[in-house]
Amino acid sequence: MQIRVGYDLIYECCQPTPMIVTLNIHPDRAGDIIVPDTMSTDPQVPLTHYMDGYGNKCTRLVAPAGQIRIGAEAVVRDSGFPDPVAEDAQQLAVEELPHETLVYLLGSRYCETDRLAGFAWAKFGDVAGGWQRVQAVVDFVHDHLRFSYPDARPTRTALDAFTEGKAVCRDFAHLSITLCRALNIPARYCTGYLGDIGVPRDPAPMDFSAWFEVFLGGRWYTFDARHNTPRIGRIVIARGRDASDVAITSTFGPHQLRQFKVWTDEVVG
Amino acid sequence: MQIRVGYDLIYECCQPTPMIVTLNIHPDRAGDIIVPDTMSTDPQVPLTHYMDGYGNKCTRLVAPAGQIRIGAEAVVRDSGFPDPVAEDAQQLAVEELPHETLVYLLGSRYCETDRLAGFAWAKFGDVAGGWQRVQAVVDFVHDHLRFSYPDARPTRTALDAFTEGKAVCRDFAHLSITLCRALNIPARYCTGYLGDIGVPRDPAPMDFSAWFEVFLGGRWYTFDARHNTPRIGRIVIARGRDASDVAITSTFGPHQLRQFKVWTDEVVG
Amino acid sequence: MQIRVGYDLIYECCQPTPMIVTLNIHPDRAGDIIVPDTMSTDPQVPLTHYMDGYGNKCTRLVAPAGQIRIGAEAVVRDSGFPDPVAEDAQQLAVEELPHETLVYLLGSRYCETDRLAGFAWAKFGDVAGGWQRVQAVVDFVHDHLRFSYPDARPTRTALDAFTEGKAVCRDFAHLSITLCRALNIPARYCTGYLGDIGVPRDPAPMDFSAWFEVFLGGRWYTFDARHNTPRIGRIVIARGRDASDVAITSTFGPHQLRQFKVWTDEVVG
Amino acid sequence: MQIRVGYDLIYECCQPTPMIVTLNIHPDRAGDIIVPDTMSTDPQVPLTHYMDGYGNKCTRLVAPAGQIRIGAEAVVRDSGFPDPVAEDAQQLAVEELPHETLVYLLGSRYCETDRLAGFAWAKFGDVAGGWQRVQAVVDFVHDHLRFSYPDARPTRTALDAFTEGKAVCRDFAHLSITLCRALNIPARYCTGYLGDIGVPRDPAPMDFSAWFEVFLGGRWYTFDARHNTPRIGRIVIARGRDASDVAITSTFGPHQLRQFKVWTDEVVG
Repeated sequence: MQIRVGYDLIYECCQPTPMIVTLNIHPDRAGDIIVPDTMSTDPQVPLTHYMDGYGNKCTRLVAPAGQIRIGAEAVVRDSGFPDPVAEDAQQLAVEELPHETLVYLLGSRYCETDRLAGFAWAKFGDVAGGWQRVQAVVDFVHDHLRFSYPDARPTRTALDAFTEGKAVCRDFAHLSITLCRALNIPARYCTGYLGDIGVPRDPAPMDFSAWFEVFLGGRWYTFDARHNTPRIGRIVIARGRDASDVAITSTFGPHQLRQFKVWTDEVVG
Repeated sequence: MQIRVGYDLIYECCQPTPMIVTLNIHPDRAGDIIVPDTMSTDPQVPLTHYMDGYGNKCTRLVAPAGQIRIGAEAVVRDSGFPDPVAEDAQQLAVEELPHETLVYLLGSRYCETDRLAGFAWAKFGDVAGGWQRVQAVVDFVHDHLRFSYPDARPTRTALDAFTEGKAVCRDFAHLSITLCRALNIPARYCTGYLGDIGVPRDPAPMDFSAWFEVFLGGRWYTFDARHNTPRIGRIVIARGRDASDVAITSTFGPHQLRQFKVWTDEVVG
Repeated sequence: MQIRVGYDLIYECCQPTPMIVTLNIHPDRAGDIIVPDTMSTDPQVPLTHYMDGYGNKCTRLVAPAGQIRIGAEAVVRDSGFPDPVAEDAQQLAVEELPHETLVYLLGSRYCETDRLAGFAWAKFGDVAGGWQRVQAVVDFVHDHLRFSYPDARPTRTALDAFTEGKAVCRDFAHLSITLCRALNIPARYCTGYLGDIGVPRDPAPMDFSAWFEVFLGGRWYTFDARHNTPRIGRIVIARGRDASDVAITSTFGPHQLRQFKVWTDEVVG
Repeated sequence: MQIRVGYDLIYECCQPTPMIVTLNIHPDRAGDIIVPDTMSTDPQVPLTHYMDGYGNKCTRLVAPAGQIRIGAEAVVRDSGFPDPVAEDAQQLAVEELPHETLVYLLGSRYCETDRLAGFAWAKFGDVAGGWQRVQAVVDFVHDHLRFSYPDARPTRTALDAFTEGKAVCRDFAHLSITLCRALNIPARYCTGYLGDIGVPRDPAPMDFSAWFEVFLGGRWYTFDARHNTPRIGRIVIARGRDASDVAITSTFGPHQLRQFKVWTDEVVG
C-alpha cells in the first residue's frame, strides 16, 4: 500500500521569529519513502535539520516578518496491516528493561506520574501485567474522556484531562502514558499522520494525530486510547516523553497560524 | 585543592525492589578523580552502570528484602575557584543556539514554562538579555522563596513554589530554570555535592544540593538561587531537565530510607 | 434613564432535570423596576423563588425531558451616571471592617487567596492602601490578561488565569478579587447586565457580564478589570464570593444549551 | 455524660495584628453547656463576638505586639451515644432539598466539585443513593488516603489529597465532601473537639478535629472518613463549606504559633 501525506501551513509573525519544526517523517521510515517529504517554504529561508535527543529529525528556521508558508508532500510505502495485537506480550520486570527505555518511566511536563500513581495502582493494580493491563488502561481512558476539539488547550496535563473529562488526541495519549508509567510500563508519546484507511471517513478537517507506544516483552507496541481499535497506516513523525518534546512547531515569539492543512490518503491505482 | 565527598545510605524494602541510583560523580570530572567513588553495597548485589540520555552515569541494582546499605567515598581535585562570573556574557538568539541546548528551552515535569511565561516577560522583559537578566531572575527567586526544609514535598513544581513561597534547593532551581527558559535562555538542573568551603558552616546535616546552569555566550554557567553567591567546590553528579530526570534514587516499590549521610569536606594538608 | 434588559434561553435535557436559576434582577434594585422581570418558561413549569445566603433571588425548577425555554424582560430605571470614582476612598483596617464583609476576605473556589498572597504583596505591597491600590490591581489585571472568548472554561481559577494569560470577564474579576483579598480588601463577585451605553457597540453577541466590588471607606465600589473604565447602566443580578456562588444556571444532570440571547439597551424616546 | 473541653494557645506577632478566632462552641449546643467556654486573653484585649453567615460564633480581636495567650475551658453535657447510623436514610432529589442546603452542593476553595465529578460518577454512580453511597465514598476516602501529620499543608485541596494520597483530618473531610457534592448530596465541613472516649487513646498530642455532615432524608448526619467508625462525644465548634470558612484563627499579618494545647476528656465521677 502507498500513502500520500502532506501539510501546508501558513504562519504570520510581526518580526523575524525563530522556529523549530518537527514535521519530517521519522527516520525509521526512511526505507519506505517513495517520494521524499522535502520541506519547502515561501518565501524561501535557510533550513537546518538536526536530530534531537529522541532520534527525531527536526528543522530550524527563522520566519521573516509577515507570512511564511511551510509545506511538504510525500508518498510512503506501508504494510497495510493494522496495529499489531499481542495479547500475550508480557510486562518486563523493571530490572530487565533496557537502559534506554527507563527514561519513559519518569514524569514529564504533561504526565504527572507522581500525582496519578495512587489512582493507577488502586484501579489497575489487580489486572495482570502486560498487554491486558495496558488494554485496561486504554479502555478506561477511552471511556473516561470525551473528545472535544473546542475545549483543547496547550497547558492541559494528564491530571487536568482526568479531572475535566474533555480531551483531544494528545490528552488521550498523555493520560494513558501517565497511568502506564505509574504501573512501571515504559510509555512514549507519538505524533504523526493517521488517515481514515479502513474506517469511516471522519468529517472533521484532517489534522496530525497523537498516540502512544508501550514497551512490552522486549519491543514497542502502538496503542491509541482515542480510537481504541487497531488502525492501518500510521506514519510516525516524532516520538518523545510527551507533547512538550515533539510540538509540531515551537515558535519563539508572537505569531498567528493562518492556515492549517494536513492530508493522509491511500494512493489508489 | 582536594575535596573528599561521599555518602552512606540505608534503604529498607519488604521485597526485592529494583532501583536506579544516580549518585556517581559526573563523567566530565573524570580527570579530577584522585580516589574513585566506587559504589559498594551491603549486602553485595550486582551493579550495572549505564549512561542516560543526558550523559549522566547511572547505576541499576535490585535491593533485596530487608536493608541495603549503599555507599562510596571519593577524593576529587578542584580548582578552588568560586563559580565564574561573566557579567558581559550575552544571550544568544534562539537561532544561534547549538542544537543540543534546545531541549533545555522546553517545559518539563517541574518546570511549567507555558504557565509562567506571561509572568516572566512581564517581570523581566525589560531587563537586558544575558547575564543581567539571569541575575535578575535569580535575585527575584532568592527573595521570593523562603527556605523551609519541613515543607519540602516531591510533587512541588515551579509554579507551586512560586505561589507557596516555600522552597528547598530543588525548588529554587526549578523556579529559576522555568523563568529562564520562558525567556528563551537554555537552563538545566544540576545535582551534586556542595560543601561549606569558604562560607560559614551550615549547622544542618549535610545533604546533596541542587543548582542550575544557563547557556550564555556559547557556554554553560552555574547559578544558585538558594545561596545567590558564587561558591567553591561544587562537584556535579548529574544534569537534566529537572529533578525528575536525576533523582538520587528511583525506587520501583515500597521502601523506607533508614539512614542518610552525605559529606563534602576539603582535604586539609 | 430607562434600560430594557432581558434574556431568552433554551435548554435541552434528556430527562427531568432540576435547575437553580440565578437570573432575577437583584432585590436592591426593586425600587427601580418599571416593568418587572417576571420569569416565564415554555412549557410552563412550577417556579420556586428563594433568597440565597448572599441576598440574591434565585429560582428553582425542574426542566422536563426535551426543550425548555426560560425568559424574561424588564425595564429598569437607572441614574445614567457612570460607576462612581472615589480616589480618596480609604482602606479600612481589618479590625474596622463590618462583620458581614469578612467573608469576602476568605478564599473561595476560583479565588485562591492563599496561593497568590505572596505575589500580591510583592507586587502591590508598596502601593498606598485604598482606591489607588485597588486601581493598581485592576490596571495590572487589565494588562496581564487577554480577553479570549474561545479559550473560556468553567474550571479556570484566578491562578489559572494568571498563568495562562487568557480570560473572559469572570476571570478578570476572579483574579482582581483574589489579589484584593490577599491585600486585606474585601472583594465580591457580581453578575449582571452591562450594555454598551456611552461606549462603542461591541460587535460580539450580548452576554451577561461579570465585574466585582470592593469595600473601601465604609461602602462597596464597583470595579471592572476587563473594561477598566467607569461604565453606565450596570444592572446587578447577583453577588457572591465568586462565580461558583452565582452561576446563571446550576443544572443537576446532562443538558445542552440550545439558545442564548441576552439584551440590554437604553429605552429611547 | 459530661465532657471537659478547652484550649490554650499562644501567638506571637511583631506588630498589632487583627485576628478572627473561630473557637467558641457552636450555638446549637447552648442547651448543653454546664460551664461556659468564656474566652480570655493575656494580656487582656477587647473581644467582639459575631455570628458569621453559617451560624458560627466568631470572635475578633487585635493581638498586640509580642505574645498573646488565648484560652477557654468548658464542661458540656453529651448524650454519650455514638454518631447515629441510619442505613435506610434516603438521598433526596435535588428538587426536594431545602433551599438552605443548596449552597452545600457548590464548589468551594478546597472542594473542587467540578474537577472530581467525572471520577465521582464513574466510581460511585452505580451505588444506590443515600446512606450506602455516602458510606461507599467514606470507605474509599478512608482507604485511599494515608494519615500523615508531617505532610500537612494549608493549601492542599481535595484534588491534591486525592492525587498525593497523604492527608490529615481536614483532607479526609474535603475529599469526602467533594465527592458527595458531585453526587448531588449536600455536604458541609465541621470543626470541633473529638476526644478518645470509647476508643484507645491516641498517643499524639490532642488537636481539634475535622469531619463532615451530609444531608440525607431530611436531616444532617455526621461522617468521619479519617476514623470511619461512629464516635462518642463530638462537640462542634463551627460548620462551613470547607476549612476556608472556619479556620481556627485567621490572622491578618505575620505571626508565630508558640503554644498549642487542646483537651477533650470525659468528666469522671
